[in-house]
Amino acid sequence: MNTSINYKYHKISRTQRQELLAVARKDAPADYIIDNVTLLDLINGGETPGPIVIKGGYIAGIGPEYHECAAQHRIDAKGAIAVPGFIDAHLHIESSMMTPVTFETATLPRGLTTVICDPHEIVNVMGEAGLAWFIRCAEQAKQNQYIQISSCVPALEGSDVNGARFPLEQMLHWRDHPLVTGLAEVMDYPGVIAGQDTLLDKMDAFRHLTLDGHCPGLSGTALNAYIAAGIENCHESYSLQEGRRKLQLGMALMIREGSAARNLDALAPLINESNSPQCMLCTDDRNPWEIAHEGHIDALIRRLINQHNVPLHIAYRVASWSAARHFGLHHLGLLAPGKQADIVLLSDARHVIMQQVMVKGVPVNAETLSAEEPARLSQTLPPYGNTVQRTPLVASDFNVSFTPGKRYRVIDIIHNELITQAGECLCTEDGFDRDDICYIAVLERYGQQLAPACGLLGRFGLQKGALAATVSHDSHNIVVIGRTTEEMALAVNQVIQDGGGLCVVHDGRVQSHLPLPVAGLMSNETAESLAHHIDALKNAGRECGSLPAEPFIQMAFLSLPVIPALKLTSMGLFDGEAFTFTTLEMTP
Amino acid sequence: MNTSINYKYHKISRTQRQELLAVARKDAPADYIIDNVTLLDLINGGETPGPIVIKGGYIAGIGPEYHECAAQHRIDAKGAIAVPGFIDAHLHIESSMMTPVTFETATLPRGLTTVICDPHEIVNVMGEAGLAWFIRCAEQAKQNQYIQISSCVPALEGSDVNGARFPLEQMLHWRDHPLVTGLAEVMDYPGVIAGQDTLLDKMDAFRHLTLDGHCPGLSGTALNAYIAAGIENCHESYSLQEGRRKLQLGMALMIREGSAARNLDALAPLINESNSPQCMLCTDDRNPWEIAHEGHIDALIRRLINQHNVPLHIAYRVASWSAARHFGLHHLGLLAPGKQADIVLLSDARHVIMQQVMVKGVPVNAETLSAEEPARLSQTLPPYGNTVQRTPLVASDFNVSFTPGKRYRVIDIIHNELITQAGECLCTEDGFDRDDICYIAVLERYGQQLAPACGLLGRFGLQKGALAATVSHDSHNIVVIGRTTEEMALAVNQVIQDGGGLCVVHDGRVQSHLPLPVAGLMSNETAESLAHHIDALKNAGRECGSLPAEPFIQMAFLSLPVIPALKLTSMGLFDGEAFTFTTLEMTP
Repeated sequence: MNTSINYKYHKISRTQRQELLAVARKDAPADYIIDNVTLLDLINGGETPGPIVIKGGYIAGIGPEYHECAAQHRIDAKGAIAVPGFIDAHLHIESSMMTPVTFETATLPRGLTTVICDPHEIVNVMGEAGLAWFIRCAEQAKQNQYIQISSCVPALEGSDVNGARFPLEQMLHWRDHPLVTGLAEVMDYPGVIAGQDTLLDKMDAFRHLTLDGHCPGLSGTALNAYIAAGIENCHESYSLQEGRRKLQLGMALMIREGSAARNLDALAPLINESNSPQCMLCTDDRNPWEIAHEGHIDALIRRLINQHNVPLHIAYRVASWSAARHFGLHHLGLLAPGKQADIVLLSDARHVIMQQVMVKGVPVNAETLSAEEPARLSQTLPPYGNTVQRTPLVASDFNVSFTPGKRYRVIDIIHNELITQAGECLCTEDGFDRDDICYIAVLERYGQQLAPACGLLGRFGLQKGALAATVSHDSHNIVVIGRTTEEMALAVNQVIQDGGGLCVVHDGRVQSHLPLPVAGLMSNETAESLAHHIDALKNAGRECGSLPAEPFIQMAFLSLPVIPALKLTSMGLFDGEAFTFTTLEMTP
Repeated sequence: MNTSINYKYHKISRTQRQELLAVARKDAPADYIIDNVTLLDLINGGETPGPIVIKGGYIAGIGPEYHECAAQHRIDAKGAIAVPGFIDAHLHIESSMMTPVTFETATLPRGLTTVICDPHEIVNVMGEAGLAWFIRCAEQAKQNQYIQISSCVPALEGSDVNGARFPLEQMLHWRDHPLVTGLAEVMDYPGVIAGQDTLLDKMDAFRHLTLDGHCPGLSGTALNAYIAAGIENCHESYSLQEGRRKLQLGMALMIREGSAARNLDALAPLINESNSPQCMLCTDDRNPWEIAHEGHIDALIRRLINQHNVPLHIAYRVASWSAARHFGLHHLGLLAPGKQADIVLLSDARHVIMQQVMVKGVPVNAETLSAEEPARLSQTLPPYGNTVQRTPLVASDFNVSFTPGKRYRVIDIIHNELITQAGECLCTEDGFDRDDICYIAVLERYGQQLAPACGLLGRFGLQKGALAATVSHDSHNIVVIGRTTEEMALAVNQVIQDGGGLCVVHDGRVQSHLPLPVAGLMSNETAESLAHHIDALKNAGRECGSLPAEPFIQMAFLSLPVIPALKLTSMGLFDGEAFTFTTLEMTP
């Protein structure tokens, strides 16, 4: 019998347990006592007094009865409010362009003590070898980095070329790992609803863990069927009505505020005391610039409290306890005896101003983390091999002939959302009848040297130049947008030369580029250096027009076939509602 | 690998799942459609419209989109409100004096679709053989009868003689049974707090499941230590402050309203929307008379709503969803697609008036249940062997000499509570200085023929006669109280002759007696016949004085050593606070 598959079973040795009890009884000194502290009562509401005493990484006791408790280290919290460390219920660390080591360096000091990761991006590029490295990182992390095993690699069978297949047989190699909490977002919702055996096989194999969903805009009988299949949560809700219906039908709701998809303002008004145990926060995809400048889950909490008047204990609950319970992480998410000592001390709870973070009973020191980062990264043996198997291109490779008088489909973006609209335009003698349109192409990068798939992109705001990237969900082929095919070729060739990365071209030359040597997705630079690099890219992008706030993230979702309405993969234009390919030229 | 140990993993076959999805999609007819129904929204609050469609025992879909759904059977709910079937989070079915078969016959029509049982009573009498029979009953039940494996048999090592030992080695035989949800109330809280290996061994063996607690009145460092050990809930809270503190420290709170211990009025004011996911309802010990006349969990819900103004969605939530989540029963506790179709249709939600109950997708018919009861009971092969190994007694066996001028300890009961007070009295030339005192004796019934342990009982209201019973927690020796030793002997000899049972004697003869042939705890009669029998016993009891509302249940807890303050076991007078034996005569 294998008990490790149940994550409730977080193992503490007998000695550790007995030492913890001795401290709880005040028969032995604590490792730490946090004094002069008040705890938010996330269960009842209100507050409750400290101190908090800690032994061996766990909370031994809470309350005034511990004022005189002996301890090796005494932390004077100076009247701070204590809350549990924050939990991101669903994210792709790869989207931060940081390795897991760099990611925790950047986010632990922001109170993010737990992340539920779907390493879907690196698995799409590198398959099981990518997952193996990711889990190696998680095993060495100070942060609690849990893994949902990517369920849909490739994202949608037959819709794109990607770097690897990741069938159930390989998924099972990792299912019983102690850091694995379940099955990551099952994006092929039409397949689930239809009851396809290959999908139900995966779900059945992980049914004793947590089954993550992904069903943007789903409603009616289809939503009922998706839930009846056993899917337990969704982070793809765009309206209050959609979110409420998913909650009513038993789903847990992950309120996502990423760098591209921003649903917090739409969904926050839905949170109440009653449904808060079923509401969680997640970032899904958040870029390094935002992490550095706005924060991570801390930024979401701040907005819940200050912009949406969510009561403190509910805002901090959805950021911790709700997610811990949902994923069966019973040792996390609450400040209580026996729980892991993941603690955020807030000098200002309303504004989420952090005075001190502790993880696994140890204070987090941002400077020490930074200093250790390069050595810790190299210990994880990052897979630096080139994953961009593409020969350089010339401008004519992007040529598409448009016939005056004909109508063409246009991928119209919605700023800060992942869904697109299926737009259209008319080709005239002078070009198109809309002046917001630029070219988009997606180039397969896994050695097949397919001809670029080309299309038209609306509302992106690109006035000149070109942007290229090897970050493009979920297959991470090369996506490029541009006003001229020459600049598109220039940008693409730079990212090929860099072995993956991001690039901005305008006025005929590369203005800024960021190599992403790990799978064409992640940098091996430090968080700080990466933030500077991103600033440079953003500045260069600004010269190209009024782009979305995060142009590369917005761009990265233009080839994701599982999200409506119109997308472009390396194989062509894809109708994300009908789940079939379509043509650029519209039939009259 | 054994996935059956995780109860989240409630297995549905592939065929069943695909049939369920087909109905959800409206591609196939449902088994049932419940139309003209409104659902209480237990997640968000408020209501949401039906219909509800059911296939193969599970809910396939909910909502107006199913109005025209084809179905084999159509139930017109006539505007009823639908809520999930009720869950009793902790009970000893034996205390109903009914077998599990009879119990479900009596309680399923009252909406009680799930019970979390601790078969602690029969295990104390019969050991593993008793558990085997109990689980055989649960396997054949229509009700969801889950089992917490009894952790403390005997209740407190060395404090009493009981019928069997039930060590970890035997507990492990049953742990992985699909109906086992965890470890039942770990009553030896001093042992847990001290970190005793034998107790931690048991807890570690069940830590991946749910660890039930029992810690009446515990607070301060001791409560912290008990929780730090991993105990997850408690059903023994007597005051609002005690309940709130347990919730603050991470415990789930079971609000108990049994026939002897009644905590609902004290704890109901604590329930709010915020803490409701951590609050559950339980009966612990409820007698057949109350079940027949007042109800079971339905009675508790009724009082929460009408006496304590708990909002409807919160009252029904603590009676269903909260408990299902706490025990990892993810297929229960909510009306949602994919959940088991355990449904209560209420013609009046405020007054919990039931129009129809469904369990596992099948309508409950009280008459059919009753008609099938005898045959179903005999299929479970009840263990009818005599468990009362005691030779008849005479009055002089109960004689204790009291010396005028000396003070004696008195067990002072508190009506409707399990805890007692440690009282005292003075022996005078004429008897005692208190006129509320009667005799109490406990007689070991497991073949050792120990001399009766004798004591004094205050405030019970017994003016004449004697009451005897083989139901006496937790060892279930013979407990007898009386005004005369002659009548005590008469009552005891009747229950010995009956092979266990209850008996009321007054005016020198047996007035009423109920044989309990299954382990001296349970009747083999039908629920209806049992209710009549209990009425007769109560009437006979009423002749003996102003007894507690449920004299036999109150009496049954007078020998339970793990509950403060003063108790009498078959081995003598026990101080339930110091956890040691004490003397009847007080030392000056």
